[in-house]
Amino acid sequence: MSVRELVVLGTSSQVPTRYRNHNGYLLRWDDEGLLFDPGEGTQRQMIYAEVTASAITKVLITHFHGDHCLGFAGITQRLSLDRVPHPIHCYFPATGQVFYDRLRRASIYHSVATLVPHPIEQPGVIFEDDKVVLEAQKLDHGVDTFGYRWREKDRVTMLPEKLEALGIRGRAIGDLQRQGHAVVDGRTITLDEVSSPKKGQSVAFIMDTRPCQGALALAEGVDLLICESTYLSTEGREAHEHGHMTAAQAATIAKEAGAQKLVLTHFSQRYQSTEPFLEEARPIFENVVAAKDGKRIPIERHKRE
Amino acid sequence: MSVRELVVLGTSSQVPTRYRNHNGYLLRWDDEGLLFDPGEGTQRQMIYAEVTASAITKVLITHFHGDHCLGFAGITQRLSLDRVPHPIHCYFPATGQVFYDRLRRASIYHSVATLVPHPIEQPGVIFEDDKVVLEAQKLDHGVDTFGYRWREKDRVTMLPEKLEALGIRGRAIGDLQRQGHAVVDGRTITLDEVSSPKKGQSVAFIMDTRPCQGALALAEGVDLLICESTYLSTEGREAHEHGHMTAAQAATIAKEAGAQKLVLTHFSQRYQSTEPFLEEARPIFENVVAAKDGKRIPIERHKRE
Repeated sequence: MSVRELVVLGTSSQVPTRYRNHNGYLLRWDDEGLLFDPGEGTQRQMIYAEVTASAITKVLITHFHGDHCLGFAGITQRLSLDRVPHPIHCYFPATGQVFYDRLRRASIYHSVATLVPHPIEQPGVIFEDDKVVLEAQKLDHGVDTFGYRWREKDRVTMLPEKLEALGIRGRAIGDLQRQGHAVVDGRTITLDEVSSPKKGQSVAFIMDTRPCQGALALAEGVDLLICESTYLSTEGREAHEHGHMTAAQAATIAKEAGAQKLVLTHFSQRYQSTEPFLEEARPIFENVVAAKDGKRIPIERHKRE
Repeated sequence: MSVRELVVLGTSSQVPTRYRNHNGYLLRWDDEGLLFDPGEGTQRQMIYAEVTASAITKVLITHFHGDHCLGFAGITQRLSLDRVPHPIHCYFPATGQVFYDRLRRASIYHSVATLVPHPIEQPGVIFEDDKVVLEAQKLDHGVDTFGYRWREKDRVTMLPEKLEALGIRGRAIGDLQRQGHAVVDGRTITLDEVSSPKKGQSVAFIMDTRPCQGALALAEGVDLLICESTYLSTEGREAHEHGHMTAAQAATIAKEAGAQKLVLTHFSQRYQSTEPFLEEARPIFENVVAAKDGKRIPIERHKRE
């Protein structure tokens, strides 16, 4: 069975602490590995978490504050050192191209890995294949910031016993899958007669931002919402001034968007424990966990199924 | 009493490991703090070692391979975030100016700290005041690399009882200190009659390099020699090919240069334990220790005194 999980590499806002590294999140998804916001030290956090550079297929940077990107320099060099053979596709706000370029060539090394930059100019779909759609939406943080949604396309599972009962074989099955219908012995069979729908899973990654429409749109119905909650509500004013969210605001987005599970992260260094974040979020949105460096969070099947 | 010690922040060559971070060494010396070769994660290692960014007065980069400089990006940003008021003087090979510039502005931040770049064009003295001399020498590593020596000037301690016995007071003491002699009651007194010499302490920082004349010159008579020993002698050929040293070669430099104490560091990830490095070095040079992340090594008074 394919692995679908979030590997938390770091959870600290602005500066690392004794217990929290700068940000870093690896979404392991079948044969894809999406590395979000690699802050300084992500290379080493990956060693602790027992994931290798070769697991990375995409790098997604929300914005170019240091805690979300300084580790990209080490990651690019590690990809080359480990001679990772596949191309790594890198997504980031287009206005940060200069920082991407500096981090990509931050020091002397022998660059052999293939990194493909995809500077994002506009919100919308930034990648799509037959299985998944990757979407970016603008967030509200003072500097250009994009949040991301990784969404598996809805699929259908063919039901062999129904196919057999209706005498559907060979090319007719292909017609059903491609066209949504097939003609068998003069009768038109539709796909929904012989299949069951399988809703795709989805994950949203939202940081750094004040509550905003973009965040809400990304979180819409996702299975897993990874959301910044830099502050507690007692520091609500500071959160707003610095373009961040409180735990209550993150929980409200999860609730309003109908997300299944919420992961709080990006905690300010002032808070030693993350328990108060859960206490603040839980009355608003129950299925919530606090990210912790090294934690693995499985992507669970949709409750609606 | 002033603190003089080496705070080891990281000891790993090329890539971090579970137990060793990328390089990083803070030489605390009275009111100076010399940060050598800040690799990725140095900012966080400083938290573990309980030293703050405000302790840094100089940054010295031997060369621009990632394990010796990627942490400079985070350090520069931390200096600004912490609003460190004093200027930070930065020394590095001039041919690496482009990497210095990229790391200095690797991501978006509000730069308020004063960093003064001192690109090194030629070996020799790169800083001097009334107390210390900082010297750089070329090393042999394939890319432009400078090793450093921080040397306290020799001083004299005036001996009050001798001054008193000879009736020397006031301006005559100043004359002795400035000119080396003074005339008291028609008699010429020389400085060595009323003082005892105090030899200055010194520290050399040598990495990355094959054994070379520059390394030997820097190590000459130092109290503390911090020297790379990436490999053991069993990998001597690899050491040479990659522009590095073995533990035995580092010990030989310490011995030939008449150093007082040797600190081995910059270990290849292939070695779990540093004990074999000590076993290899000790028969050649006895006063040797292996650097370890978080270790503090005092600068001891010169044996010759």
